[in-house]
Amino acid sequence: MSQKAPIVGVFDSGFGGLTVLRALLPKISAAHYIYLGDTARLPYGAKSQATIARYAVESARFLEARGCDYLVIACNTATALALDDIRASVKIPVLGVIEPGAESAYEATGKNSEVLVLATSATVQSHAYRAACTARDLRVTEAACPLLVPLVEEGWTDHSVTREVLRIYLSEALQHCSPEAVLLGCTHYPLIANAIQQTLRDLGCEATVIDSAEATAATASYALASASDTFVPATFECFATDSVEKFQRLGSLFLQREIEHVHLLDLGG
Amino acid sequence: MSQKAPIVGVFDSGFGGLTVLRALLPKISAAHYIYLGDTARLPYGAKSQATIARYAVESARFLEARGCDYLVIACNTATALALDDIRASVKIPVLGVIEPGAESAYEATGKNSEVLVLATSATVQSHAYRAACTARDLRVTEAACPLLVPLVEEGWTDHSVTREVLRIYLSEALQHCSPEAVLLGCTHYPLIANAIQQTLRDLGCEATVIDSAEATAATASYALASASDTFVPATFECFATDSVEKFQRLGSLFLQREIEHVHLLDLGG
Repeated sequence: MSQKAPIVGVFDSGFGGLTVLRALLPKISAAHYIYLGDTARLPYGAKSQATIARYAVESARFLEARGCDYLVIACNTATALALDDIRASVKIPVLGVIEPGAESAYEATGKNSEVLVLATSATVQSHAYRAACTARDLRVTEAACPLLVPLVEEGWTDHSVTREVLRIYLSEALQHCSPEAVLLGCTHYPLIANAIQQTLRDLGCEATVIDSAEATAATASYALASASDTFVPATFECFATDSVEKFQRLGSLFLQREIEHVHLLDLGG
Repeated sequence: MSQKAPIVGVFDSGFGGLTVLRALLPKISAAHYIYLGDTARLPYGAKSQATIARYAVESARFLEARGCDYLVIACNTATALALDDIRASVKIPVLGVIEPGAESAYEATGKNSEVLVLATSATVQSHAYRAACTARDLRVTEAACPLLVPLVEEGWTDHSVTREVLRIYLSEALQHCSPEAVLLGCTHYPLIANAIQQTLRDLGCEATVIDSAEATAATASYALASASDTFVPATFECFATDSVEKFQRLGSLFLQREIEHVHLLDLGG
């Protein structure tokens, strides 16, 4: 990588990955970010591995062609199902969200600890978090929570219905495990991290809640050490394959700052 | 149309349109049905008009090429945003779900009545139901209910959370109208029609609940009169652009009969 400010590509199927960009901005400030949300083809969650890999590879190639020096796959489903395909298709280093998340759970709890992973159905079915946690001698339970993404997208992040849905999902999961860490394996979940923590406590579970977005930003900051801890303001631009208006409106919620402009991108399909 | 048993194409972005196929099967039994769910690119709800039209036209052309004599667009979003494009791109007659739904509301209530349409955000934003109802001198309120599809897909059709979400959506809507008919403007909603009816009653509203799927099947049966009211068992086959397993599992719930085989179809993209 050159000594100039690196260009960091951040890819997600939608705007959820903006929680990863949000974590990256203060950690690696001397960088320019290009965020791509493949909103025309979201959600990836219910699609097959072959389809997800094809979509993700097209997006990764676009970001490489735009001059990115480093690529963060800020999408749990794409990381779970397509990370090897993406790495094989571009020449730049590629970081997914799952290994940093599992590593962070290990650092917070230690060997033989029990970890509960909350994720979408597709991420759970891939068992990618199970593999990453087991490789670190963690015991792992994976729980699919399909309603949490729509609840967050409805804006019900602090709402009695969301708390009730969390109570149902988490009390079911806690029948099968007694976790010391709960890993948020979906980019939408950091927006309800407080509600998740509170519901766990209400159910008598004092597990540490770990956010894969934060863990991924920390890992990226090691890789891009020359650009970390400097005080140049980071810049970013956003591309989406559809729904520019929705991207701006909801994306600002995820990024916690205003998104002034979103470029519309046609990847075909 | 020839005198042989007609081939009827039924198109939806996913498996929700199977509620329309379910209504068609007993009404037009001397027919062969080809159902296509564009599951690789669902949901259409949050996408732009241009993207939805392109997807829907590709699907309609596939069904025409498979020999369909008649095409039912069993997808509210595709009907709302792409019916004209579809009609312009194929030579066979094309029926959408919105006109029959509005006509059914008119027949149930009469001129100057008030109708509440429940639908996805994209269908509401298109105001296609508003136009169809206004053309019949009905007064109309449209309410977006984005959480209902994920709740149905989670299988929570008879669940306290679904009833609570309905209470929130419907009590909000009833602040703005006093409907004599409530039109289900999404193919997933017939699966919670009873809960919708009960919630309306609990809120003091005695409106008739009207299902666009049933209304569409009735309209199609006039068009295909020669194949109606005969006692030949209808046959059907299903195509999906992805997620064949999920299509079989959830689709059986919507069709209320087992789906033995789903053909995987690549439309590109």
